Amino acid sequence: MKISVRKAVRADLQAVLDLVIELAIYEKEPDAVTATLADYQLGFDENRIQILVAEDNGRIIGIALYYLTFSTWKGKMMYLEDFVVNEAYRRTGVGELIWHELKEDCKRQNCILLKWQVLDWNDPAVKFYEKHNATIEKEWWNGKIYF
Amino acid sequence: MKISVRKAVRADLQAVLDLVIELAIYEKEPDAVTATLADYQLGFDENRIQILVAEDNGRIIGIALYYLTFSTWKGKMMYLEDFVVNEAYRRTGVGELIWHELKEDCKRQNCILLKWQVLDWNDPAVKFYEKHNATIEKEWWNGKIYF
Repeated sequence: MKISVRKAVRADLQAVLDLVIELAIYEKEPDAVTATLADYQLGFDENRIQILVAEDNGRIIGIALYYLTFSTWKGKMMYLEDFVVNEAYRRTGVGELIWHELKEDCKRQNCILLKWQVLDWNDPAVKFYEKHNATIEKEWWNGKIYF
Repeated sequence: MKISVRKAVRADLQAVLDLVIELAIYEKEPDAVTATLADYQLGFDENRIQILVAEDNGRIIGIALYYLTFSTWKGKMMYLEDFVVNEAYRRTGVGELIWHELKEDCKRQNCILLKWQVLDWNDPAVKFYEKHNATIEKEWWNGKIYF
């Protein structure tokens, strides 16, 4: 196993979407992903998303998808929208490699903080983040409306 | 009282920051706002933020600060980072005016959904969102690291 991590290019987007669907199934929402490859291409072309991909001999087996946002309290912020490692590669250090590169990329882009969400029952993920000295806040709810 | 709502210009940013600080005090985090006017100007100049302001005879008394992001599940998403109405103007319909304009602006920009967060103890805000048919999710925690 020889894992490398790099920024994604447009041709990687289908493999990225495949891993997003894998995570949605793990999160018990198998039908929730209605975004298409065209949506990903548009987000990529409009510079609304950045992606790190981890490869094992050319096959994409992990991703972090993130974007620049703005914290009204802190200033320039990176938001990690999705972070997935293929099931066969969990507990092999792939997540650590992606996490390290993600932090470096945030610092390169002068972000004050990185923010994300995790499901309250996802113990392995919560433990991963706590190991990396993350603050976990439990008092915020999400609101959503669809158009 | 004659309230109007419009998109913010650069010269409005100090008034916007003042309302953000007012909300932080309400949210029991008076010292949490370390972002400066320069951070707001940079976010504005780099098109990372959009703002609606509500005015009463030229004085800014309400804001919504938001930005385009990307939902890996749904596609083009607007995120509402902060929504504040000055205390003296609450329960006067100002929030309704801003909310209406915000939804129109999301639709104009072809967003599939609008997302935001609310503190679990903030009953008036939760009731406002429920009245507007929002979905409130309670099973997500926030993770954060600072650089």
